[in-house]
Amino acid sequence: MTVLPKSVEKVIEEFAKLPGVGPKSAARMVYHFLRSPYKEASKLADMLKLMDEQVKFCKECFNLADSEVCAICDSPVRDKQKVCVVEESLDVVAFEKSGVYNGTYFVLGGVISPAEGVGAEELRFKELKVRVKSIEGNVEIIVATNPSLEGEATSNYIQDMFKREIKEGRVIITRLAMGLPTGADLEYADQLTLKRALEGRVKV
Amino acid sequence: MTVLPKSVEKVIEEFAKLPGVGPKSAARMVYHFLRSPYKEASKLADMLKLMDEQVKFCKECFNLADSEVCAICDSPVRDKQKVCVVEESLDVVAFEKSGVYNGTYFVLGGVISPAEGVGAEELRFKELKVRVKSIEGNVEIIVATNPSLEGEATSNYIQDMFKREIKEGRVIITRLAMGLPTGADLEYADQLTLKRALEGRVKV
Repeated sequence: MTVLPKSVEKVIEEFAKLPGVGPKSAARMVYHFLRSPYKEASKLADMLKLMDEQVKFCKECFNLADSEVCAICDSPVRDKQKVCVVEESLDVVAFEKSGVYNGTYFVLGGVISPAEGVGAEELRFKELKVRVKSIEGNVEIIVATNPSLEGEATSNYIQDMFKREIKEGRVIITRLAMGLPTGADLEYADQLTLKRALEGRVKV
Repeated sequence: MTVLPKSVEKVIEEFAKLPGVGPKSAARMVYHFLRSPYKEASKLADMLKLMDEQVKFCKECFNLADSEVCAICDSPVRDKQKVCVVEESLDVVAFEKSGVYNGTYFVLGGVISPAEGVGAEELRFKELKVRVKSIEGNVEIIVATNPSLEGEATSNYIQDMFKREIKEGRVIITRLAMGLPTGADLEYADQLTLKRALEGRVKV
């Protein structure tokens, strides 16, 4: 016997579509709303609507923004000759939290992944080309895709895209260093990480 | 530097309030909406609104319902002499999925928990009294609170509440059996479970 009202079941189904959420935890979350004496569900609903209405993508870097151009692209103190290419906006948040980067970003929207049906045309490569073209002087493109096979393929694609500019010396492309993360245990490091750490060893 | 639009941050904060969701997974969930080409956030918003508007509590058992009286209380085939007292609606779902129970329910709304500031007045004890009074003939109250200290205390409270009716023989109170769950490993069973399993042993 189905005992849940239809409207509740629908919301549970919707929550279960979120990344990392199974049907059981989705039900727990929705029950949290139903238990609450205040109309928490409606409150969240209003916030979601507002988000959908207000959130824009920066027309320069495609990061999430409140306005046409995001605060980073708009900032006079950020180094415009550096463009850090990331997969998604969350990666920008990670960089900004660390405070180690003073350049600008470009959000690609994902990585090339034939397995998941994501081809180059799904990503913002054309927009990246336009963006780099619009920058005066030399440009360093820092490819900060995740250290995965897909990230690697995407990095190669970008390198290919700027072949001519690289030859002309107008563009250089760099990648984030790969190696052991801080606090890692050699014993548990995977083969590829060890290989990269060895290849990239530095003189002390 | 805060890089997220305010509206996005607010939704992330709201998601992080849900049970079992930390700030990182909340961000992942919200980004899922922002990545989606369809207005998924607005879709969920509409569903949440609908849920808040449509969901009622059954006036007999306080389970979630589409109408004044839930499908279980309304059903002519359910045994009205049995009232299974559970903490929350999710417990009703668990029973109904198992298909092992043919009586009715009563959703208490939680358990007595001084540690979490939940006293008897926060729960639906008065309503339970009214409900049991309204049933003609003898009533079995099956206390199906969770096997925790709080569940135990709540069970004792119910027993106290119906002292007179129990003496009169109009009400009997039972509890779910405690013991080893199917597939359990004796080796890993906790002390209390073993104690209960031993106390409740049955002749074969």
